[in-house]
Parts: sequence; structure tokens; C-alpha cells
Amino acid sequence: IQELNLKLEMLEKGGYDHFMLKEIYEQPRSIYDSMRGRIYPLEGKVQLGGLVEYSEKLRNANRIIIVACGTSWHAGLVGEYLIEEFARLPVEVEYASEFRYRNPVIYENDIVIAISQSGETADTMAAIELAKEKGATILGICNVVGSSIPRLTHGGAYTHAGPEIGVASTKAFTAQVTVLTLIAFYAAQIKGTLSQSKLTSLLTELESIPSLVEKALATNDIIVKIAEEFKDSTNCIFLGRGTGFPVALEGALKLKEISYIHAEGYPAAEMKHGPIALIDEQMPVIVIATKNSSYEKVISNIQEVKARKGKIIAIVTEGDTEVKNMADYVIEIPHADEAFLPLLATIPLQLISYHIAVMRGCNVDQPRNLAKSVTVE
Amino acid sequence: IQELNLKLEMLEKGGYDHFMLKEIYEQPRSIYDSMRGRIYPLEGKVQLGGLVEYSEKLRNANRIIIVACGTSWHAGLVGEYLIEEFARLPVEVEYASEFRYRNPVIYENDIVIAISQSGETADTMAAIELAKEKGATILGICNVVGSSIPRLTHGGAYTHAGPEIGVASTKAFTAQVTVLTLIAFYAAQIKGTLSQSKLTSLLTELESIPSLVEKALATNDIIVKIAEEFKDSTNCIFLGRGTGFPVALEGALKLKEISYIHAEGYPAAEMKHGPIALIDEQMPVIVIATKNSSYEKVISNIQEVKARKGKIIAIVTEGDTEVKNMADYVIEIPHADEAFLPLLATIPLQLISYHIAVMRGCNVDQPRNLAKSVTVE
Repeated sequence: IQELNLKLEMLEKGGYDHFMLKEIYEQPRSIYDSMRGRIYPLEGKVQLGGLVEYSEKLRNANRIIIVACGTSWHAGLVGEYLIEEFARLPVEVEYASEFRYRNPVIYENDIVIAISQSGETADTMAAIELAKEKGATILGICNVVGSSIPRLTHGGAYTHAGPEIGVASTKAFTAQVTVLTLIAFYAAQIKGTLSQSKLTSLLTELESIPSLVEKALATNDIIVKIAEEFKDSTNCIFLGRGTGFPVALEGALKLKEISYIHAEGYPAAEMKHGPIALIDEQMPVIVIATKNSSYEKVISNIQEVKARKGKIIAIVTEGDTEVKNMADYVIEIPHADEAFLPLLATIPLQLISYHIAVMRGCNVDQPRNLAKSVTVE
Repeated sequence: IQELNLKLEMLEKGGYDHFMLKEIYEQPRSIYDSMRGRIYPLEGKVQLGGLVEYSEKLRNANRIIIVACGTSWHAGLVGEYLIEEFARLPVEVEYASEFRYRNPVIYENDIVIAISQSGETADTMAAIELAKEKGATILGICNVVGSSIPRLTHGGAYTHAGPEIGVASTKAFTAQVTVLTLIAFYAAQIKGTLSQSKLTSLLTELESIPSLVEKALATNDIIVKIAEEFKDSTNCIFLGRGTGFPVALEGALKLKEISYIHAEGYPAAEMKHGPIALIDEQMPVIVIATKNSSYEKVISNIQEVKARKGKIIAIVTEGDTEVKNMADYVIEIPHADEAFLPLLATIPLQLISYHIAVMRGCNVDQPRNLAKSVTVE
């Protein structure tokens, strides 16, 4: 019986060594599924069925409060940047566990967005109940269809990433980011904060993201080499600016979860306010340094780290030469509008964590101490 | 000439081995100085001269946005909890470096509070300029009188902590927290969100905080023993909930800055969403576990860490027995209203960092790679 089970599991893994790797490689498809039927680039329109009823609320909203835990909280931070940028609506992102115990200020024209892969996260559910009592409109972003949170919320959108078996979330994260990107565009469409031509061009580019994610997955070979070099590190720092900051946080969390290396994410400019004291020749620093509005600033942050002999692994835009001259390793990802950076830059970070964890002999699909769905407080 | 300089420096250190230690011990006085002439417990009133002109703005404010970097950003997070709790005003805390580059949503009835010890922090100054352009009212919380930020802001309050020489901020942090506490009470007074009797009782208790800080400093002996045991650790986790969360972040930053141990702060409930994978018998976990509204929840977080064999050092309320039975070490601080927890719980964390750094032979007053005032972006 055991042998059969093993074979069944191998079958379920679709030829991959681990569910996590399979799920990383599924992302071109899962991201596509999360936007399918929701974007109409030719008409320059976004449609989110589960939000239609609340479009008037969204137009008049005072503020959006995003509540989530762990990886979903990182997706929320990406959402904050995108919704503020495109829909010009103030967004506050809260740890569900903190929000629920602090008598938060919530107005009736606030919209609360709760994010949870499983749809069962205990702290997030309690946060929803609290916000509901205060009269807020609650939208959910969940992956598991028919789970508890979608039944508690007024509306929302499923992520359609398919079942995620690996305990460390990968495709569910990028699906959450995709849906939050759609919500940012949808709110912008309703509020008229983006020109039609800009919205059309963003939607057209969004449609091509799955194929760019495919290209980002092709960084796997260089990543195996990088993982070989850094697999015995005890610590690691991840840096980013703008939407690269939550991507750095998520990259660090992944490495923590499955390799047990103490990794920490920081907004790159915060380094000189303390954390740079940690940097010496033992410390790998992974930097999101793609060509976007903060590119020049990130370069000076890289120089600061190099001056203290830190090792730099940089995620750069294809064809970059400036960072290549400074960094110890570069990983090239395709160029895209800054709005889509999180969907692309996340991919190599997932692969780094995966390969390092496998080389360290860790159980990547079921890391120690962790459960897939946190249904206790 | 060198000999004389050394003697002069010893004199300036007032008998302490380092400026940092001197400044830690100055806190009963510096906290007192930051509230002197500003609170009137008998009349149940707070008075902040630099805010009087903006009391109408404060009454009608839509939102407060706090911008800061490093330690000041942690003070801002404490301010968020206190202002939301007492004045029922939504507060958003932003890294100045992120805020300035993201085209933030700012309304004319938003109030921006900029926090900076030196009053010269480049990113914070740029954030102020941006918010000013958008028409917001800007208040400053600075320590250095006559510095640039107080000249850029509309109003504000100095912290009166006196000159801080140690690069790692100690007394400037608690002074910032004191002023933010006063601002929370002042806004509550203006908005009528606290009953007169509650405000009076809080102000009366606040007046006694300097003497309770004195008691918290008496934990030094047990802390020396704890530092002996953990001085060779390579990593450390700090946990807290509510206002204990920013205190945990600040405790971790201090340890990073002066001992070069990779320490990280987390809201305690987030552990099970990933970071708990890091816990094994090598990992010291410092927990703020004082008797307040989240006490029972923190106890279950401690149990989770103990089940994974982590070492627990708990900051508890005097006389606590429950945590004592679970923790490897406890550090007792005096009981006080939850609002004042940050001012008391911070003290032992500063002492832990100090003693560990000294035992490791680090230059505590001038840690590697760091400058006192960050006047570059």
C-alpha cells in the first residue's frame, strides 16, 4: 500500500520533486486563471463580478483597510502601493491579529479587504467580524472556494490558483497579487483616476504577464549556482523599494520558512538607520534592482552594502549593465511596467529559497513547526 | 593632548563607561523633561504650546500620517496605537523614504507628523516638502533645537531629551514616545474622546512614570546575567503584541545596531505564519509579556515557542507567576496602564543590548557602518 501511495504522490507532483516546485512552475497558468474573464484589454475594461454590487461604495470610499496574516499580508502591502497609485484611495494594511485586539477606528464608508489563501485563517476571520460590527463593507480575496471567509464577506474575488499543497505559499501569493492588481485597476476605472489609454495599455501588458513569468522561471539554472554558493549562510537580508519592498519581505519569509535561514526584508533606504551594522563579508544581500523609478536610489543602496563587503545578489531587468558591474550575482527578469514588478521579481526569490532548502536537506513541502492553514489564534 | 581629551570624555560620560549607558540612565530625567510644563494632572489637562494653533485642524483632521525612519519610525508605531485608541483618529505610519517616492494620497485635512531626533534626516525632510506641497498641516517631533525640520514644519513639540551622543538612540526614543503620548492625550482632549476622569487618571499616572522608569533600570543586575548567557547567540527574535510590538521592533534594532546579532521583531501572533520555523534550542526569544489586554494571548505564543525548544526571556509585570513558570528568564518591570508600557518595557531591552554588545567587545557608542544623523538619502 505504501508503494502505491508514493507513486500516487509522484503522479500528483506531475514529475516535480516537490509540490512547492510544481506550484512555482504552475504560476504562468495560475496567474492567467486569476485574471481570466476579468480583463478586456481591447475594450480597456476590468470586470470583477463579486465587486459590481459594491462599485458605488468603492467610488465613495474614504479608505481601504486590508487585513491579513503572513504571506497574504505581504500581498496586501503590494495592494496598498497599487491601489494608492492608481485609484488614489488611502490604504492601510494591518496584521489581522493586531487589528482585532486594538479597538480600531473604522468608519461606515471604509472598505475592508480580507486576504487568506485557505479562507479559514482564525485571526482574519475575527478581524472581519469586528469590522462588520462597525458597519464597514468587507471584501474577501481567498483561494479555497466555499471556505469560511467568502461566506462572511459581502463580496470579493477568488484567486483561482488551484489547490496549493506546499505549506510555504507560492502560487497563491502571486494570484493574490494579481487579484489586488485587478482591484486597483477596477477602482481606478470606477473613480476615473486613470486615463482610458493608460488603463488600456496596462491591461494589455497585464495579459502578457503569464508569458513573462514563464521567462522569469528560466532563471532557474543561474539560481541553482547561486544557491550552491549561499546554501550554508546562516543569515540573509532582502532589500527593495516601492513594490519591491513587500517582494523583499515575502522573499525573506520564504527563505525562513523552508530553509530555516534567518532572513529579513527591509525597505532598502532603511538600512542606514541601523540594519547596515549587520553587514560584513558573511552576509548575502538580495536586492530588487530592476529598472524603474527607484533604480538610481537602489544603486546607491547597493554601493553602501558593497562598501561594507556584503555579498550582493541582484534581481535586475534583462540587459542591465550598471548593477551587473557592482553585484556578485545578477538574475535577469523581463522588463515590465513597475505595476507588475511583484509578479515577476517574486519568481526567482521563490526558486532561491526552494533550491537552498533542498540543498540543506530540509522538508520543503512540510517545513518544521508550520501548518498550511492557521485555524487557531 | 590625547590624555586630556580622554579625561574630558570620561567627565562627559559622568562616570559611566559609555555614553549609551549614561543616556539609558538619564531616562527618568529626560522623560520628565519631555512632559514638564505640558501636563496638569490636577486640572486634568494637557498643554502643547506648539500645537495650540492647530487644535482646530486636529479636531477636524481626517487622518494622521506619521513619517520617520529607523528608531523614530518605531516611536511612530507606538504613536499610532495611542492616537487611534485615545483620540479615535486613523493613523498611518510610513517610512519617510517610501512615502516620498510613491506619490502618496494626501488630503488637505490630513495632518502629517514628522519624527526625527536630529531634525536633519534627509528622507524625512523630503517627505515633509512633499506633504507641504499637497497642502497638509505638518507637525514635527525633534530633539535638536533649531535644527532644519522644526523650521520646515508648521508646528510641533521638541522632545527635550538633551544631547544624545550614542549613535544607537535610547533616551531620544523614549522622549519621542512621551511626546506622542502627550499628543494622543491632547487630541483626545480636543476631540472629547476621553472622559475627564479617565484623562485625569492617565495624566496622574504619567507623572509617576519617571519614577517607574527608575525601577525598570534596577533590572540591570539580572540583565547582566542574561547577557552572559546569550552573548554568543548569532540570532534573536523579539515578540510583542499591541504597543509591545513596536517595542519589540525597537529592541531588535538596538541589538542589531550595537552587537551585530541578527535580531528581528515580530507581532507575536505572526510567528505561526512562518517565522516559527526558525525556532530551535539555539534561538533566544525575548517576549513582552506584561499584564495587559493581550496577556493571555502572549502566553499562548510563549507556549508555541517553548514547544519548539526556543529559549524564552520574558519582560513581565512585577509579581507575575504564570509566565515565570514557563520562561527561562523573567525581567520584572513595574505595573502601569497599558498606554505607558512602551516607556517601561523599552528600558530592559536597551540594557540587554548594551551589556551583550560590551561583552562581545563592540564599540557601543559608535557601531560599525552607522552615523548618528543620516543626512544623505
